[in-house]
Amino acid sequence: MTSHKLTDTIVEKVTTPRSRRDILKTLGIGLTLPAAATVLAACGNQAPATSAQASAAPAASASMDHAAMSAAPAATAAAGNAWEEMDRMHEAGIKSFPAKTEGLGGQLLEPRMDGNVKVYELTCKKVMWEVTPGKPLEAWTYNGQLPGPEIRVTQGDTVRIVVKNELDESTAVHFHGVKMPNKMDGVPFITQPPIRPGESFTYEFVVPNAGSHMYHSHHNSTKQVSMGLLGAFIVEPQDTSKETKVEHDYIVILNDTAHGYTWNGKGFPATQPLTAKLGEKIRIRFMNEGMMIHPMHLHGLSYLVVAKDGYPQPQPWECDTLNVAPGERWDVIVTCDNPGVWAFHCHILSHAESEHGMFGMVNALIVEE
Amino acid sequence: MTSHKLTDTIVEKVTTPRSRRDILKTLGIGLTLPAAATVLAACGNQAPATSAQASAAPAASASMDHAAMSAAPAATAAAGNAWEEMDRMHEAGIKSFPAKTEGLGGQLLEPRMDGNVKVYELTCKKVMWEVTPGKPLEAWTYNGQLPGPEIRVTQGDTVRIVVKNELDESTAVHFHGVKMPNKMDGVPFITQPPIRPGESFTYEFVVPNAGSHMYHSHHNSTKQVSMGLLGAFIVEPQDTSKETKVEHDYIVILNDTAHGYTWNGKGFPATQPLTAKLGEKIRIRFMNEGMMIHPMHLHGLSYLVVAKDGYPQPQPWECDTLNVAPGERWDVIVTCDNPGVWAFHCHILSHAESEHGMFGMVNALIVEE
Amino acid sequence: MTSHKLTDTIVEKVTTPRSRRDILKTLGIGLTLPAAATVLAACGNQAPATSAQASAAPAASASMDHAAMSAAPAATAAAGNAWEEMDRMHEAGIKSFPAKTEGLGGQLLEPRMDGNVKVYELTCKKVMWEVTPGKPLEAWTYNGQLPGPEIRVTQGDTVRIVVKNELDESTAVHFHGVKMPNKMDGVPFITQPPIRPGESFTYEFVVPNAGSHMYHSHHNSTKQVSMGLLGAFIVEPQDTSKETKVEHDYIVILNDTAHGYTWNGKGFPATQPLTAKLGEKIRIRFMNEGMMIHPMHLHGLSYLVVAKDGYPQPQPWECDTLNVAPGERWDVIVTCDNPGVWAFHCHILSHAESEHGMFGMVNALIVEE
Repeated sequence: MTSHKLTDTIVEKVTTPRSRRDILKTLGIGLTLPAAATVLAACGNQAPATSAQASAAPAASASMDHAAMSAAPAATAAAGNAWEEMDRMHEAGIKSFPAKTEGLGGQLLEPRMDGNVKVYELTCKKVMWEVTPGKPLEAWTYNGQLPGPEIRVTQGDTVRIVVKNELDESTAVHFHGVKMPNKMDGVPFITQPPIRPGESFTYEFVVPNAGSHMYHSHHNSTKQVSMGLLGAFIVEPQDTSKETKVEHDYIVILNDTAHGYTWNGKGFPATQPLTAKLGEKIRIRFMNEGMMIHPMHLHGLSYLVVAKDGYPQPQPWECDTLNVAPGERWDVIVTCDNPGVWAFHCHILSHAESEHGMFGMVNALIVEE
Repeated sequence: MTSHKLTDTIVEKVTTPRSRRDILKTLGIGLTLPAAATVLAACGNQAPATSAQASAAPAASASMDHAAMSAAPAATAAAGNAWEEMDRMHEAGIKSFPAKTEGLGGQLLEPRMDGNVKVYELTCKKVMWEVTPGKPLEAWTYNGQLPGPEIRVTQGDTVRIVVKNELDESTAVHFHGVKMPNKMDGVPFITQPPIRPGESFTYEFVVPNAGSHMYHSHHNSTKQVSMGLLGAFIVEPQDTSKETKVEHDYIVILNDTAHGYTWNGKGFPATQPLTAKLGEKIRIRFMNEGMMIHPMHLHGLSYLVVAKDGYPQPQPWECDTLNVAPGERWDVIVTCDNPGVWAFHCHILSHAESEHGMFGMVNALIVEE
Repeated sequence: MTSHKLTDTIVEKVTTPRSRRDILKTLGIGLTLPAAATVLAACGNQAPATSAQASAAPAASASMDHAAMSAAPAATAAAGNAWEEMDRMHEAGIKSFPAKTEGLGGQLLEPRMDGNVKVYELTCKKVMWEVTPGKPLEAWTYNGQLPGPEIRVTQGDTVRIVVKNELDESTAVHFHGVKMPNKMDGVPFITQPPIRPGESFTYEFVVPNAGSHMYHSHHNSTKQVSMGLLGAFIVEPQDTSKETKVEHDYIVILNDTAHGYTWNGKGFPATQPLTAKLGEKIRIRFMNEGMMIHPMHLHGLSYLVVAKDGYPQPQPWECDTLNVAPGERWDVIVTCDNPGVWAFHCHILSHAESEHGMFGMVNALIVEE
């Protein structure tokens, strides 16, 4: 498989928002690491050396001024040189991206219909979750996924969500941002008893307001949300005529506690890239389920900010670094008019890079020509 | 006193913004704990058990699926079971809300008139302040209150504020957000000498700009503001025709240092709930006197954000989670069109809940039918 | 030199944005400390005592109520009294502002023209940088300055930036906010090889988008940006007819790691004041290169927020405390209609003041009558 063929394959598969999951499987799971590494090489403009030894003889570059090297340390290439080792670690991280890990969170959950009621089942359970390659960590999940499965409904739908608790402590589910009837609001001892281990609870409601919302635990929540009891609850408006038409609809859920700095339940290099064809528009729905702010910066392009917490902004506004605070959701439109592999990361740099290379809240938006 | 009568009483008392203080006294100070606990039971849709022993036999609920319990841990109810103990602590916290504590901060300070000058006296002094029940902590206060008394004036008023320092260190008062004549700006060694122990200083000015402002120490401020030298300075506009008409005007001052995570000087369960009748509009003025951001999330309703730091936003915008940074003030309007007891808290979850239950920056907005 | 003459001199020198640097040299480097101290005394309305001994006999003030002192601690003035010592430290800090330190960052870099190409040279190198008086710290800089030199170009310009790496580790430069051709984006192993010690790399591009942008390291960035590899990249729009006309254009780059809390590479009292004449408008371009938010508060005036990350806000809005998150840039206009020396600082108070006095992210805007 040549890199050209690989990227062609990506483009072919990126035709509908839903097919993104197929792409991710292809990139992150179906590929061997060397092949995955070529994704970036093919999209970039350099052909970086692929072995550690090659670092003493960097790839030629039109803009690299070798005349300046002369007697500089770079020419000596002593084994064990600290900066060379650092570069090797950085390179290895990038080359392994997007890295293969077990498990994909946020998979679309199809409802079972009971008359006109959309029925969803969520089971709270512990699993081992591979946040980064070879580093499985205990996670408390909905249906074994981190984030929990994406629930996507339409404003006005009647929805029934049956939550079964297979954890060894009580829980409850709050639909964050949905203007619930009070008794469905998911706050133990205020609106319901906690769902004790082994029990179930049924949330049923007519969905009142559109937008990018979330569902998550509201019992012992500092621990339970940290451990993974969270997911996206997307409500499409009944009238979509005012929505920007987009080719892809991406959800980015951030977290920063029990599993490190994560993007949809994975840390770099296991984050899964966003992709688009040149000229396409995409929607990104940022959601913060952590304890810290994350100012998300996208290289080479800009955001048009169109909604906050599911409510349209009265006038969309543009930026390239969007501060997402805990509990917030921000919808942005990106017009993908600049081709390339664009770094996409939290700009609290310590959430994104260490002396060992990039990690955590780092990803890429790949715009294919 | 039945719970029905209690909530009726609340509704009767909630008729003007100013009467809120009477309500709070009733809820937080005038009631015995068991009666206070019924506030929530009456407004909620469950009748949770009220004794610890009852937790092994949860209240029946139409939506609770007991069939699922069978052989689950919940059925065993072993004494000392960790999760049951955790639930009991959570329940006890909720049931004690709104808890009785000594002292109510932010009480409206009525001026003495000297001709056309509104004269206010603020005395800086140390007191013991009951942040949560049974946990008095040293506080440095204006007039023995935390927050200091609310000062509410009208744009164009001539105001004289006499500050007496009974602390054992110097201080000074900065009117944060007010476009002061420079010599009244309250910055020691730049605009005035510090007010030394035992001394007084008089701030006198014509109030230039409307909005939600604050007054607080600007000397050794990291310590002094943390310890409690802060209050709300509200300036009503001369022309109120553009203001949204509201039935209640609530001030929410956040702090996060010497007294833990506090909401108007109290931590949950001693925070005092906001109340409204179904259909009413309320204004909430968020103010952050702490060192951290606090993204304030309200369940079941939404905010219309109308002003930042006292300046009207050019176009109000809607959200349900508003990030309030240190020094910021945000005014929002809530249309109380969804009845119930709505959790209202900082969405940095570690500021709101631990394994011991809810604490800190947690409160409720009670919308009465 | 009388203080009156000094402030007159300031006013005379403040005539164009570019001359600001002359002012700063005058204030911070050209003056002896006693003379610098009079800057504040002249603009304020008090004549604070200037020696430590004088603190037991505070300057008379119309608004200081000495009758209240009586037997209070202030009257005793015991040597070694803790609060008096604290006041002395606070006073000394203020009096030394703006303090003289070696080195001025952010100096405008004039390009060399190669045909129609503007050529800039940036050399990455370590220097000792005097962040506060007498406290030089190692800094990793562009051209020996912290922040690196200001690069100011016009939209549509062809720009060539030759980066030479004299550090002992690799680096790369990312032009944060500029919609680059991908291969010029500065992300090692994605868009280019790292620039190894002793090597150079040339970035060449047509500047696509206007606004307040930054350049900084994108390799081992948590360390390298912390250590100082950062600077402002300002792109003037081709059509300036929609820009607010301002008399001064100030850049405020915040950082919060290796050198403490800094404002353009200096900590108070070595920060250099902004100046304006009464009635002038100024632009301030806030940029955050740190790891924390900094809600920047200006006393006595207000901001009109006109741009985010270089993009005009659809409707400017007003505030006095602006939360600047890492990676963000905010442009504000201040109409200097209130004379005096206005404190200007981060409102996370622990970034601005300790029991030893003001430090870190503290500065002043001096509005001269």
